[in-house]
Amino acid sequence: MELIESPLFGRNVFDMRTFCVVTGASKGYGKCIVDHFCKLLAAGSAMVLIARSESLLLDVKNQLEAVRSEILVDIKATDLSKGDEDTFKGILLNSLKNIGKAVEDFDQAVIVHNAASMGDITKKMTEIGSSGNIRKYFDLNVTSVISLNHEFFKLFNRKTVKQVVVINVTSICAIQPFKTWSLYCSGKACRDMLFRTMAIEEPDIRVLNWAPGPLDTDMQVLARSQTGDTDLKVMFEDMHNTGNLLPCEVSVKKLVELLQENTWDTGSHIDFYDI
Amino acid sequence: MELIESPLFGRNVFDMRTFCVVTGASKGYGKCIVDHFCKLLAAGSAMVLIARSESLLLDVKNQLEAVRSEILVDIKATDLSKGDEDTFKGILLNSLKNIGKAVEDFDQAVIVHNAASMGDITKKMTEIGSSGNIRKYFDLNVTSVISLNHEFFKLFNRKTVKQVVVINVTSICAIQPFKTWSLYCSGKACRDMLFRTMAIEEPDIRVLNWAPGPLDTDMQVLARSQTGDTDLKVMFEDMHNTGNLLPCEVSVKKLVELLQENTWDTGSHIDFYDI
Repeated sequence: MELIESPLFGRNVFDMRTFCVVTGASKGYGKCIVDHFCKLLAAGSAMVLIARSESLLLDVKNQLEAVRSEILVDIKATDLSKGDEDTFKGILLNSLKNIGKAVEDFDQAVIVHNAASMGDITKKMTEIGSSGNIRKYFDLNVTSVISLNHEFFKLFNRKTVKQVVVINVTSICAIQPFKTWSLYCSGKACRDMLFRTMAIEEPDIRVLNWAPGPLDTDMQVLARSQTGDTDLKVMFEDMHNTGNLLPCEVSVKKLVELLQENTWDTGSHIDFYDI
Repeated sequence: MELIESPLFGRNVFDMRTFCVVTGASKGYGKCIVDHFCKLLAAGSAMVLIARSESLLLDVKNQLEAVRSEILVDIKATDLSKGDEDTFKGILLNSLKNIGKAVEDFDQAVIVHNAASMGDITKKMTEIGSSGNIRKYFDLNVTSVISLNHEFFKLFNRKTVKQVVVINVTSICAIQPFKTWSLYCSGKACRDMLFRTMAIEEPDIRVLNWAPGPLDTDMQVLARSQTGDTDLKVMFEDMHNTGNLLPCEVSVKKLVELLQENTWDTGSHIDFYDI
C-alpha cells in the first residue's frame, strides 16, 4: 500500500553519476551490458566488473577505457560461489579505493546480478543426487547474490544516494519449467522471488527482473550441446541453425530503453518479448 | 505433449501397500499427516518418519503402533541440512532392513517433503548478509530435498512400483512475496519450480505442490513473534487471536481427499483455499 517510490522514477537512469557493479562482466551478456552502459553513463560514473577471469576482465577494462576514459573502471577476478559477506565487502571497498572515490561522489548506484551458471542440465531432477554439486549451484546463483546485494546496500542506499537500481538477470525459466533444467529453472524462480520480495520491502528502490531472451552466448552453446531432454536440445539446435538466437546487443538495447524510461513496475519480471 | 500418465490415476492412493516417507514427521503438520496416513494406508504399508528429535519420533512411533499395528513404522533422527546422498541412501536402505521388507513388497511409494525452516524472517533481504546462514537455509530446504528425492527414486520408481506419489509441502509464499520473508518465499518458489520440472520430466509419476494454508503450528508461533515487518506480524497475531489459523487436521483432511481422488493435475500448486 506504500506510495513511496524512487523520487527519480521516470528519469533516465544513465543521466546520473553512477556507481555500477556488474557480475559476470567478462563475456557474453554481461560484457555487452558493460559496453553499452559505459557509453551512456554520465561522466564521473564508475563501473566495477566482477568475473572469474582476470585476463578477460583486463581486456574488457582496456576496451572500455579506450572508448570512454571519463568512466572509471575497476575489475575484480573472483569466484562468487566461494565468496562470503567479508569477500564482497572487501571487493566493494577496494573498488572505491582503487578508483579514488567515495560513496558521496555518486548520485546513483546500480547493481546488475548477471553472473549465473546452468547447473546440471544433462539429467532429470530425480537423477541429480550429489549434494555437493547442488550446493555449489545455489552458492553461486542464490547465496552469493543475496550476500553481495547486502554489502552493496550497506554502502549504497537511499540515505547515501538519490536512486538505487537493482537488475536481476533472469529467464523465462523462472516462470516455466523445462525438462532436465530443474536446477536452472528453480534457481531462477528463487532469484525472481527474492527480488520481488526486495521490491515490496524497499519501495523507493528500483528493482527489475529482466529476462533477456534466448541469447547467442556460451550458455546457449551449453544448452544445445548438453541438454539431456532430446526435444529441448533439438529446439536449441534449431534456434541456432535458423539464426533465431538474439545477439546480445539487441537484447541489451531493450534493457537500456527500459532504464532510460525508468517507469517499469518495480519488482516485475519483464521479458525481452514482452516489450 | 506426453499422454503417459500414472496408470493408477484416479485410484485412491491409500488403497495400495505403500512405502511412505515423511520428513519433519515428529510434530506439527508432518505429525498430523503421519497420523492420518497411518489410519488410511492399506495393511502391509510402511512409514518412515524423519525428523531431528529421536525422542519425539519415538513418541510418534509408539502412538502409531498403538493405533494400528499392521502398519510398519521406522524412524530416523537426523538433521537433513547436514545430510548428503550417502546419508539419504543409508536412511532408506536401513529402513527397509529395519522393517524387514524389500522394495518389491510394495505396490506404491509416497514421499512427503514436509521438513522446512523459515530462514531469517526478522530482516529485509538487503539486511541479510551471512553467507553461512543463507547456505544453511538452502541446504535444508532445497539441497537435501533434491538429494533425498533422488535416493528415493533410485529405489522406488515406475520400474519397481505401480505408482509413485511426491508431495511437496509448499506455501502461498511460493507465489506471493511477503516482507521480511525473502528466504522463506524464495525457498518455496524454488521448491515449487523443482517439482513442476519433475512433473513434466516424469509424467507417469504423481507430483503435488500442496499449500496447506495458515496452520496453527510452531512455525506460526515464530511467524507472529519474529516477523520483522510490523504489518505482517500484526496480521499473524490477529489470525491467532481471532482463531483464524487452521488446525492441522482440517488441512490434512483436504490433502487426504485430494489423494483419495487422485485426479489433480500433476505438478500443480494447490492451496487449501483453492478446493
